[in-house]
Amino acid sequence: MAIIGVLLSGCGVYDGSEIHEAVLTLLNLDRAGAEILCMAPDMEQNDVMNHLTGQPMKEKRNVLVESARIARGDIRDIREVKASDIDGLILPGGLGATKNLSNFAFKRDDAEVQPDVKRLLVEMVQAGKPIGAICIAPATLTKALSGYDPEVTIGNDPATAEAIEAMGGKHHTAGVEDICVDLRNKLVTTPAYMLGPGIRDVASGIEKLVLKVLELASL
Amino acid sequence: MAIIGVLLSGCGVYDGSEIHEAVLTLLNLDRAGAEILCMAPDMEQNDVMNHLTGQPMKEKRNVLVESARIARGDIRDIREVKASDIDGLILPGGLGATKNLSNFAFKRDDAEVQPDVKRLLVEMVQAGKPIGAICIAPATLTKALSGYDPEVTIGNDPATAEAIEAMGGKHHTAGVEDICVDLRNKLVTTPAYMLGPGIRDVASGIEKLVLKVLELASL
Repeated sequence: MAIIGVLLSGCGVYDGSEIHEAVLTLLNLDRAGAEILCMAPDMEQNDVMNHLTGQPMKEKRNVLVESARIARGDIRDIREVKASDIDGLILPGGLGATKNLSNFAFKRDDAEVQPDVKRLLVEMVQAGKPIGAICIAPATLTKALSGYDPEVTIGNDPATAEAIEAMGGKHHTAGVEDICVDLRNKLVTTPAYMLGPGIRDVASGIEKLVLKVLELASL
Repeated sequence: MAIIGVLLSGCGVYDGSEIHEAVLTLLNLDRAGAEILCMAPDMEQNDVMNHLTGQPMKEKRNVLVESARIARGDIRDIREVKASDIDGLILPGGLGATKNLSNFAFKRDDAEVQPDVKRLLVEMVQAGKPIGAICIAPATLTKALSGYDPEVTIGNDPATAEAIEAMGGKHHTAGVEDICVDLRNKLVTTPAYMLGPGIRDVASGIEKLVLKVLELASL
């Protein structure tokens, strides 16, 4: 049975992991019989957003603690996870993927990737193990792997596609039900809520992504 | 197209809505072509739990604001929602359903139901419109409808089943993939994470519940 890591970045689309994308990832992994290893960095969130008003809140929250809400408490600090512990890794989207796992949301192609995240992503590629990235997460993935000419999709947003190319990636336009596969680096990406509009649309692309990651993990 | 309300109670199994159950409810409603109206009470959470350690945190959070994370911001104060606005209503589980929507988690069969929640649940039954309740949420439903001899399941936990009977309900033992249907009151319940163990098991019962609520809404 393949062990697949799920790298979370908080709990909520505006400051953490997009909840629907994260849960759909877990659902499809469990249905396919994979063992799931949830993880997140043990660090303060870059910000806390009120999801009702869309405005920042004067609070501090921890990425690992909030991610534990999605994982029902069964989650590990990414610092303790090595590529040898898992057969594949999936990053759900949500702004946490570009606010906490990197600072792409603020610095665009000058972004820095959180050190443990970068270490694990590079380890995975060097080990020939697949990585899936959903929604905006491919931006952080591209920055972490800028030396590997990664090929990804974030849908069709021209500014984000341009930033991805500026970070050394190649961007492919795709629809919400599509996946983009970089076979050389074993990267699988899907636009999800970069396009939406609904959870059923997003579910379709995420199911394909999970099955492709599992297929590449078994090669 | 049926309009189905989804009554949330926060964001996380230990102090709010169980996230997987809430997202699976939204997924199945969207796949069936229903229009979704998310709602929650605008009130302080009874407590805030650290989902990594299982311990309480010295914080205050608002049920409506945290529920908005699951609803991606598209959510209304339950106070503004009447039974005439919706064709059916579904309550996902998680301890928020018995800490915030009522205080069953603390007072068992002496529980009080949050006033707006009780008002809407009674309105729905009086209007002959279906209500679905998942996991532990049937306990709050039973208390709100104690005058209507509600028949529900929470799985097979003897103490909770006993409390449900003490509140005027009739409890039926059921498996995680089963639904319990009270045709007279149009109530549909499923054990979900009262039994688990995994998200794929829970998904099966929730899919049946959503489809049955939609069937009853169209009668």
